[in-house]
Amino acid sequence: MTTTTSRPTEGTPWRSAEVAPLSDETLARVDGWWRAANYLSVGQIYLLANPLLREPLTRDDVKPRLLGHWGTTPGLNFLYAHLNRAIVEREQSTIYITGPGHGGPGLVANTYLEGTYSEVYSDVTQDTEGMRRLFRQFSFPGGIPSHVAPETPGSIHEGGELGYALSHAYGAAFDNPDLLVAAVVGDGEAETGPLATSWHSNKFVNPVNDGVVLPILHLNGYKIANPTILGRISDDELRDLMIGYGHTPYFFTGGFDGEDHAEVHRRFAVLLDEVLNHIAQIKADAAAGNDERPFWPMIVFRTPKGWTGPKEIDGKKTEDSWRSHQVPLASARDTPEHLQDLKDWLDSYRVHELFDDEGRLDADIAQLAPRGTLRMSDNPHTNGGLLLKDLRLPDFRDYAVEVSAPGGGMSEATRVLGQWLTDVVRLNPDNFRIFGPDETASNRLQAVYEVTDKQWNADFFGPDVDEHLARAGRVMEMLSEHQCQGWLEGYLLTGRHGLFSCYEAFIHIIDSMFNQHAKWLKVTNDIPWRRPIASLNYLLSSHVWRQDHNGFSHQDPGFIDHVVNKKAEIVRVYLPPDANTLLSTYDHVLRSRQYVNVVVAGKQPAPNFLTMDQAIAHCARGLGIWEWAGTEVPGEDPDVVLACAGDVPTLETLAAADLLRRHLPELKVRVVNVVDLMRLQDEKEHPHGLSDRDFDTLFTTDRPVVFAYHGYPWLIHRLTYRRNGHENIHVRGYKEEGTTTTPFDMVMLNDLDRFHLVIDVIDRVPALGSKAAGLRQKMVDARLEARQYTREHGEDIPSVRDWVWPDAGDTATEGSGPSYDAAAATGGDNE
Amino acid sequence: MTTTTSRPTEGTPWRSAEVAPLSDETLARVDGWWRAANYLSVGQIYLLANPLLREPLTRDDVKPRLLGHWGTTPGLNFLYAHLNRAIVEREQSTIYITGPGHGGPGLVANTYLEGTYSEVYSDVTQDTEGMRRLFRQFSFPGGIPSHVAPETPGSIHEGGELGYALSHAYGAAFDNPDLLVAAVVGDGEAETGPLATSWHSNKFVNPVNDGVVLPILHLNGYKIANPTILGRISDDELRDLMIGYGHTPYFFTGGFDGEDHAEVHRRFAVLLDEVLNHIAQIKADAAAGNDERPFWPMIVFRTPKGWTGPKEIDGKKTEDSWRSHQVPLASARDTPEHLQDLKDWLDSYRVHELFDDEGRLDADIAQLAPRGTLRMSDNPHTNGGLLLKDLRLPDFRDYAVEVSAPGGGMSEATRVLGQWLTDVVRLNPDNFRIFGPDETASNRLQAVYEVTDKQWNADFFGPDVDEHLARAGRVMEMLSEHQCQGWLEGYLLTGRHGLFSCYEAFIHIIDSMFNQHAKWLKVTNDIPWRRPIASLNYLLSSHVWRQDHNGFSHQDPGFIDHVVNKKAEIVRVYLPPDANTLLSTYDHVLRSRQYVNVVVAGKQPAPNFLTMDQAIAHCARGLGIWEWAGTEVPGEDPDVVLACAGDVPTLETLAAADLLRRHLPELKVRVVNVVDLMRLQDEKEHPHGLSDRDFDTLFTTDRPVVFAYHGYPWLIHRLTYRRNGHENIHVRGYKEEGTTTTPFDMVMLNDLDRFHLVIDVIDRVPALGSKAAGLRQKMVDARLEARQYTREHGEDIPSVRDWVWPDAGDTATEGSGPSYDAAAATGGDNE
Repeated sequence: MTTTTSRPTEGTPWRSAEVAPLSDETLARVDGWWRAANYLSVGQIYLLANPLLREPLTRDDVKPRLLGHWGTTPGLNFLYAHLNRAIVEREQSTIYITGPGHGGPGLVANTYLEGTYSEVYSDVTQDTEGMRRLFRQFSFPGGIPSHVAPETPGSIHEGGELGYALSHAYGAAFDNPDLLVAAVVGDGEAETGPLATSWHSNKFVNPVNDGVVLPILHLNGYKIANPTILGRISDDELRDLMIGYGHTPYFFTGGFDGEDHAEVHRRFAVLLDEVLNHIAQIKADAAAGNDERPFWPMIVFRTPKGWTGPKEIDGKKTEDSWRSHQVPLASARDTPEHLQDLKDWLDSYRVHELFDDEGRLDADIAQLAPRGTLRMSDNPHTNGGLLLKDLRLPDFRDYAVEVSAPGGGMSEATRVLGQWLTDVVRLNPDNFRIFGPDETASNRLQAVYEVTDKQWNADFFGPDVDEHLARAGRVMEMLSEHQCQGWLEGYLLTGRHGLFSCYEAFIHIIDSMFNQHAKWLKVTNDIPWRRPIASLNYLLSSHVWRQDHNGFSHQDPGFIDHVVNKKAEIVRVYLPPDANTLLSTYDHVLRSRQYVNVVVAGKQPAPNFLTMDQAIAHCARGLGIWEWAGTEVPGEDPDVVLACAGDVPTLETLAAADLLRRHLPELKVRVVNVVDLMRLQDEKEHPHGLSDRDFDTLFTTDRPVVFAYHGYPWLIHRLTYRRNGHENIHVRGYKEEGTTTTPFDMVMLNDLDRFHLVIDVIDRVPALGSKAAGLRQKMVDARLEARQYTREHGEDIPSVRDWVWPDAGDTATEGSGPSYDAAAATGGDNE
Repeated sequence: MTTTTSRPTEGTPWRSAEVAPLSDETLARVDGWWRAANYLSVGQIYLLANPLLREPLTRDDVKPRLLGHWGTTPGLNFLYAHLNRAIVEREQSTIYITGPGHGGPGLVANTYLEGTYSEVYSDVTQDTEGMRRLFRQFSFPGGIPSHVAPETPGSIHEGGELGYALSHAYGAAFDNPDLLVAAVVGDGEAETGPLATSWHSNKFVNPVNDGVVLPILHLNGYKIANPTILGRISDDELRDLMIGYGHTPYFFTGGFDGEDHAEVHRRFAVLLDEVLNHIAQIKADAAAGNDERPFWPMIVFRTPKGWTGPKEIDGKKTEDSWRSHQVPLASARDTPEHLQDLKDWLDSYRVHELFDDEGRLDADIAQLAPRGTLRMSDNPHTNGGLLLKDLRLPDFRDYAVEVSAPGGGMSEATRVLGQWLTDVVRLNPDNFRIFGPDETASNRLQAVYEVTDKQWNADFFGPDVDEHLARAGRVMEMLSEHQCQGWLEGYLLTGRHGLFSCYEAFIHIIDSMFNQHAKWLKVTNDIPWRRPIASLNYLLSSHVWRQDHNGFSHQDPGFIDHVVNKKAEIVRVYLPPDANTLLSTYDHVLRSRQYVNVVVAGKQPAPNFLTMDQAIAHCARGLGIWEWAGTEVPGEDPDVVLACAGDVPTLETLAAADLLRRHLPELKVRVVNVVDLMRLQDEKEHPHGLSDRDFDTLFTTDRPVVFAYHGYPWLIHRLTYRRNGHENIHVRGYKEEGTTTTPFDMVMLNDLDRFHLVIDVIDRVPALGSKAAGLRQKMVDARLEARQYTREHGEDIPSVRDWVWPDAGDTATEGSGPSYDAAAATGGDNE
């Protein structure tokens, strides 16, 4: 693998070529390559030894556990061979997305034939011994996975979980105007929801500034045990479907009824040239100023499942059926006739024509491969870290809100962030994008529209309704979290930067996609030739505490819990309590590499607590004591610790601290705020973890800790489980308690409100004795009053709503309204 | 709400009607109904008081916090009015699925006009005071949510999270041959993945045995801040797309350019009659034996967003734009001209023509409503518990595997379950279905094909490849977890039973759908008129420990963690360790109501531990001591407790117990197995929780507990956090450690193997002293040897692979192979 950080040689992209029949010489190369790739694929699935079949095939040459998937592989190999022919002729930078990722043996085989595999894995040489290792390692203990995994050169897509081939492909194509992304979609995968909507990506891609995705629907007709839907509708319906999706479908059917392979090659080569010329024409038209949305070509590629494999096994149809899905001759080791079938199958590829006695690929066949980085397996876009450039980040300090005193001034944190992001967009016009499902403005980032637009290549209706829509822009909005996530993953994996702005509750829609990406990052950390890529950054706003418009169905803070199940080396969770901490946090996450960063931040007006200098120091520590909020005596342990994480919990905690200070001035209260949630964990469990000594210093080992937390309370217990004094930690968080429409009512519903926090303190500091009993009752009464007021007036009681930190000074100097605002009702807010 | 448990009067379903222009009388009713519903919708969003506008509208009549969504509502109301007209004329049992669920005010308005609302909420009467309450309660503290929530009569679909309208609709239609499901799909929702694939449901519905879904694509053009994709492609493309999806699209555009409402009504009534006649014809043809797949009608309904609302506000286009999405006059309370705009808007509906001075709906308009259960808001199918019949369950004891001694015999647990399910299917031919993404056979339930088939209404290719496919059948397989979940939810919500069989890792795909269903169940528990429905049952097989074919991308046991975040009253998690316990568990869950039951069970050959009698007792307790496996002395506390949950952890735990018994016979070991995970939790936290006393008796308060668990270890800590002695619990579980292809290598990779468990015990029982040091080294060596063997031979070391519980007797008497089987390589196994 080359390690250059320069952009790849793109050749002369989008070159047209004459559509002519394959020469016999080229045909022989293509077919030879295909047979070689098929042979190597079968070899990987079945063989432990005897890779060139120079000895008679015996039982012991066969792996004891046969694991893998044959069915999709010959089709993938066929396409790879034909793309190679075209890449060489057109010098077209191309990458290959394998939707049916379990066709791993095929992709490994092709990268081996191209030489790339041996370049990155020096022990898997291009000779007999290397081939033996190649075969043995596949789906073998200590070897490589059976999918197109991070270990596979040329891959940005594992295909383990189906549905994201096209999203990844388009993500790779954005801002890569010279790149062709050949994206094979399995017809099984085509049944998934995410894939079904991802066809519409063609309304977002820009024909001038972005690359081209060529979807190839691999219609081999069967899944594990069923036919596929798209394989069992008429060609007319399928054609209508693809045209309806905005494509020009090119249909290809080959390999059935014993069709001669040479004929199949000839026909497909013509079709591929027509398709690539069509693309070249669209590109040329677009460059010439035609801004009509093109009906991009796509290919319907119908070939038999398990093509070239056993036609029948034990009298049951195998080729062209679901019985080819995995390992057709599973008992080859123990059934002599199946062993013979396997031998016949392997022999059918005429291995002696493909490799010499040393296991070297025939020199003429090898000519089919492009050179250097034009090899799809060596295209730098598939090892995005090679191309990654640092973002040019404006100094976030310049975007700080003024905070004359803690609690002085109000801001909508995400709106402030939006100002900074505006300049991030301005300074990085071609390698940074913001993704979100129709919520960029709802999440208050609309300042970015001063310098960019939402990219949209469907119809326009005019400026009175199409605000901030344009054929090119840095903001990508489609009402599909799957698409946003998939696009962003593809964009990051090819060496760019971005963020995903989403409602907190609905980020669960991509739980499983996060899993797959986190696993990809974890594995790549251990692959030396894979270079680090930019982190996947979430901005979760419209969070669980402010679903006034929508209520219960829009509440779920559990994505954090989900994320924390993944390896500590990969995940980071931040809960900045105000605008300046959010700025500091986001500057940090946009600089980071190889993480998934989850940042949860509110969009509603809320008090500013920290000056920018304080915010920077606080974020650098990740958590810390807010001395100004507490009442402790220097050098003494406090009586109680009020801890908080998240903007709403922080507000309630400070209001509780204010109540305690006024009513129980002798009580020594410490306030600890947590920005970086992983700091709570043990340093042995997470790289950000605090040492026990530091933890004890902050939280004490024996004083009650009342912890107000943004999410489900259990996570705090989980993170602090092994800490000294963890049994003293009492957590208030989200309790799944249903719906309400005012902010304070919501925190009351979950017992996270200031009054309840005071009661928690009183109940946990027995030394307060009877003098606190009156205050306790006062708190109970205050809650009741607040709730009654809300039920009567439909808004929160002013004494709560308008509360500000007592030392805040003139709150009107900065910001935009009361702490619980009417802005929530200004429309354009929530789904 | 009627509380009859008989089936509804279906009238004469699928009646054709003459397509004739609306009479003036009917037109007046339809338009009056529509205006009334629109008026009530606006009233709910804006008004606190003065519901009939009999007084001048003042600031104080307007809610202080305006929360809701207007944009989609008038279109929903229009459709509801027209459907009512048709239902009355055709006596067609019909339900209404509101994809744009945030159009809640519209649905509430219609149910109020139909009288149903007042029947179930007796304080919201059909008079002025009732109307005031109706308005006030909407999106108000202590009131009702803004979505079409469980509180809304006639709803089985909240629409809070978008994407599932059609899946729910088809789920409702299956096995309800006389039911019409009118399913409104928002064009925002249409961009989601799940919705995009759910159009293909029409290839699964059976025209004779199932009901009919009429999709109505509500093309109002805008989302929160963007146009919609389907609103910005040509009609030709959209037509092709719908035909490609297998539908006959009927296009309707109305309400633009000041089109007269009467004309819009007339045109739509004709179109709707044509559509319903088309459906009636298809039904008649199917009944007559035509088994060609019909191209079911669907309607493209293009009307202005925010239709009849303010045309412009502050000079900006509002009707027919995204600015109508939520609350168009958000500052009506504080801006006098906006207050006037609101008044003009309300006046435009001519409320005095709609309601009399007592707030009673005009008697003629009221004639539009169907009677009784033909009202869509009172259709019993939307309160499925009314129609729910107990399943007829065969005695699961009859399907028991013989277990002569613990560990005697091997079974594939899910295969045994499949035998019982076969008879469940046989005994319940029209109200029980099995859903799964192509994995029913892979998960070893294929015995059901003895009595049923996979329902499939796309093309057939013949018996050599179409095994167990038929036009009607109890098994529903589509490669979309979203579809499986959505169909099953719709099926359950309309009063039937089922289960979802899925790979464990990929069940995360529907995390957010589970959230919404769990929230629905939680809320309905508190709604007296909602009757309990059957539980949503998962069978998660192909679990994390046996992903030999697929590896790392297919590993994630975190769905259990996700589920446990929901209310304890809703969720149950079971980890049966063998075949008989799985049978007993599944009998239990299929009898249950209002839960989500997660059952995780392996499909690979594994030892049987319990006879059926033992299994029943064990499952009834939920957890218990396996005396036969331990070495404790009656009346004394053990030295150590080996606890386990899950089939693979149980196997390793017993193997460890065997090692300890042989090598440290004096060590008093107790083995505890947990089937019902929630038993670990405190009885105050979960209804299944053990008392502390019982917990202490089982686990002791001071002895080390080495707990081998199926999932992420933290969950066990979480569940036992408050238990005595929880600091002594040491959990081994899944660690996210990457990939391997043999079972024992997998458990070693995660330190869950028998050798490591023995080491854990030695390290935690210091009293063992030096006599255990030798054994400890032996275990270290044994691991090393096992790992080396696996890496060399590609399969697990025989001493481990063939281990059986020493008292097991002749393991060949029962079952199908060695503990780690070749069956894993027989194809048809994993994705």
